[in-house]
Amino acid sequence: MQLAHGTVETPCFMPVGTAAAVKALTPAELLAAQAQIVLANTYHLWLRPGLDTIEAAGGIHRFMAWDRPILTDSGGFQVFSLESRRRLDDDGVTFASHLDGSEHRFTPENVAEFQQRIGSDVAMVLDVCVKLPASSEQLERAVRLTTAWARRAAAVPARPQTKFFAIVQGGLDLELRARSAREVVELDFPGYAIGGLSVGETRDEMYATTRRTAALLPVEKPRYLMGVGTMRDCVAAIDAGVDCFDSVYPTRCGRNGRAMTRGGELNMFNARFVADFTPLDPSCDCSTCTTYSRAYLAHCFRSKEMLGPRLLSYHNVYALNALMCEAREAIEAGQWGRFKARTTFAQSSQIDG
Amino acid sequence: MQLAHGTVETPCFMPVGTAAAVKALTPAELLAAQAQIVLANTYHLWLRPGLDTIEAAGGIHRFMAWDRPILTDSGGFQVFSLESRRRLDDDGVTFASHLDGSEHRFTPENVAEFQQRIGSDVAMVLDVCVKLPASSEQLERAVRLTTAWARRAAAVPARPQTKFFAIVQGGLDLELRARSAREVVELDFPGYAIGGLSVGETRDEMYATTRRTAALLPVEKPRYLMGVGTMRDCVAAIDAGVDCFDSVYPTRCGRNGRAMTRGGELNMFNARFVADFTPLDPSCDCSTCTTYSRAYLAHCFRSKEMLGPRLLSYHNVYALNALMCEAREAIEAGQWGRFKARTTFAQSSQIDG
Repeated sequence: MQLAHGTVETPCFMPVGTAAAVKALTPAELLAAQAQIVLANTYHLWLRPGLDTIEAAGGIHRFMAWDRPILTDSGGFQVFSLESRRRLDDDGVTFASHLDGSEHRFTPENVAEFQQRIGSDVAMVLDVCVKLPASSEQLERAVRLTTAWARRAAAVPARPQTKFFAIVQGGLDLELRARSAREVVELDFPGYAIGGLSVGETRDEMYATTRRTAALLPVEKPRYLMGVGTMRDCVAAIDAGVDCFDSVYPTRCGRNGRAMTRGGELNMFNARFVADFTPLDPSCDCSTCTTYSRAYLAHCFRSKEMLGPRLLSYHNVYALNALMCEAREAIEAGQWGRFKARTTFAQSSQIDG
Repeated sequence: MQLAHGTVETPCFMPVGTAAAVKALTPAELLAAQAQIVLANTYHLWLRPGLDTIEAAGGIHRFMAWDRPILTDSGGFQVFSLESRRRLDDDGVTFASHLDGSEHRFTPENVAEFQQRIGSDVAMVLDVCVKLPASSEQLERAVRLTTAWARRAAAVPARPQTKFFAIVQGGLDLELRARSAREVVELDFPGYAIGGLSVGETRDEMYATTRRTAALLPVEKPRYLMGVGTMRDCVAAIDAGVDCFDSVYPTRCGRNGRAMTRGGELNMFNARFVADFTPLDPSCDCSTCTTYSRAYLAHCFRSKEMLGPRLLSYHNVYALNALMCEAREAIEAGQWGRFKARTTFAQSSQIDG
């Protein structure tokens, strides 16, 4: 992906910095962990610190001291999670802030403008996201509005820095997915996302829908699966033709004491780690794995030392990016099938993202 | 100070890593912030992870991945803070763990052995610390037991890696301080600490007692003032003849959004910082001050992003160590008086350590 702040090699995992900060990690650490692009959240930034502050800071990149590409989501996912605190109409969505209850309104136009003005490299159009399971009426309306809103976002005067990606909805209904994909592809966006997954369906349903939907999107443009971030899901998504994904999963796991490794996840609160002086993941060359023992990390989590979340968040982002790096090399070498067969992840210790 | 893991230039501030972790900071960051020695806490390490784990890890240095000097306090201060949960007798002190209520006993011997076995560079003898104000009987008993216990600690078979420092008690009673100092100096320790201050007395009382007590200690050996860590207190202590000090103050302030600067402390929750795009401290060259704005730090604290505590803890330790570095240069250049006159700290915004 050629973006205003640099080129992103795909397939690529995008760490999430909801409030213009990837939790527990500095930009320097993100670079060291081979992150190429980070995601920030329109809903959260809109409410705090707000457009004026980010513009006055010189844009989102300068504000958070990250000079590589930034993708901002549309805030749709967060607003639709608010349930009783939002009201949807065909023109947009009105919602109450989770911070202070104040009323705000998102339209395809103002969300697009917000993302342009803060200087996002990739801005997502406002979409209507539905929790699964959902009725056909709900899904049909989501698809209809998502297309209409994508058209309206595309009509917002462009700024050279920002590329808009449209979103495909439709739940697990493949006919609706096909219609949604066809409608947004007609609008000729520079990239497309598969939204409305990782919202309550099974893993197999998610895989199948991703594969069928990705196949409907133009192969020469980025295809982005929203909300995916376990090692297994990322490999499955790449196999389905996806180019990029984002998730809070690696950093959330890191804060909660769960280490991502190719052999499965390790819970640092497990008693067996208290006297385990081996590296967290002997096959990983990140600074956490080469500097500290499992026993020390276990001690930090048990003692509620902030170092624990820091060191484990770093490892998780590093490890997932290392996997992506190997995936790119495998694809380039024409070895994807072999790579996929080699990277089987222990299922039992995985938890859903 | 020539110690097993290196030489420490004095005067020197020692960041506190209570549970074998300086809160929010990695060893690499401590080095970058010019820390020469860190302090860890016998009481906390005794309870968790415990002697066996640290020994199995290869000692405290390897456990926490810090290969420079480490000073461990005796745990006396923490045990005596437990108040109703401890029972003092002439032989030692029995206490209930704050973690699980289990009963433990500290004696001068077992505390000395613990510190030797985990590999401390500097071990503090077990002392009796009294909260101020205190009766003369309490203070007299504290002095008597502290001397007796220092004698018993000195009788524990030495290990080459560890130097023992004795502690002077006596509250604000200068006659008792003189007696305590005379008694422990007779035992010929490689260093001496001034204990029982920063425990409820006024700043002026603390300064006066420090000055009088430091004057009673041999000038050719390290003099350590326990529990001091504001910029102003450190400069006053150096002026009183003190060589090293420790405090959780810089990291605790950092976690709570308070930045230490020579112009006074800044509270990042203050509304005026929300749209202040200047560096935290324009005169500081630490990575926090050269990378982020006050507005971004304020945003991190308001958004409860862990980056806020991280970045501010780093700045505070860096800034205090930079002050110590300048103090050393001034002393070496015979310019201490000028340095002291130049570094007047805004009093109003200082809070007690």
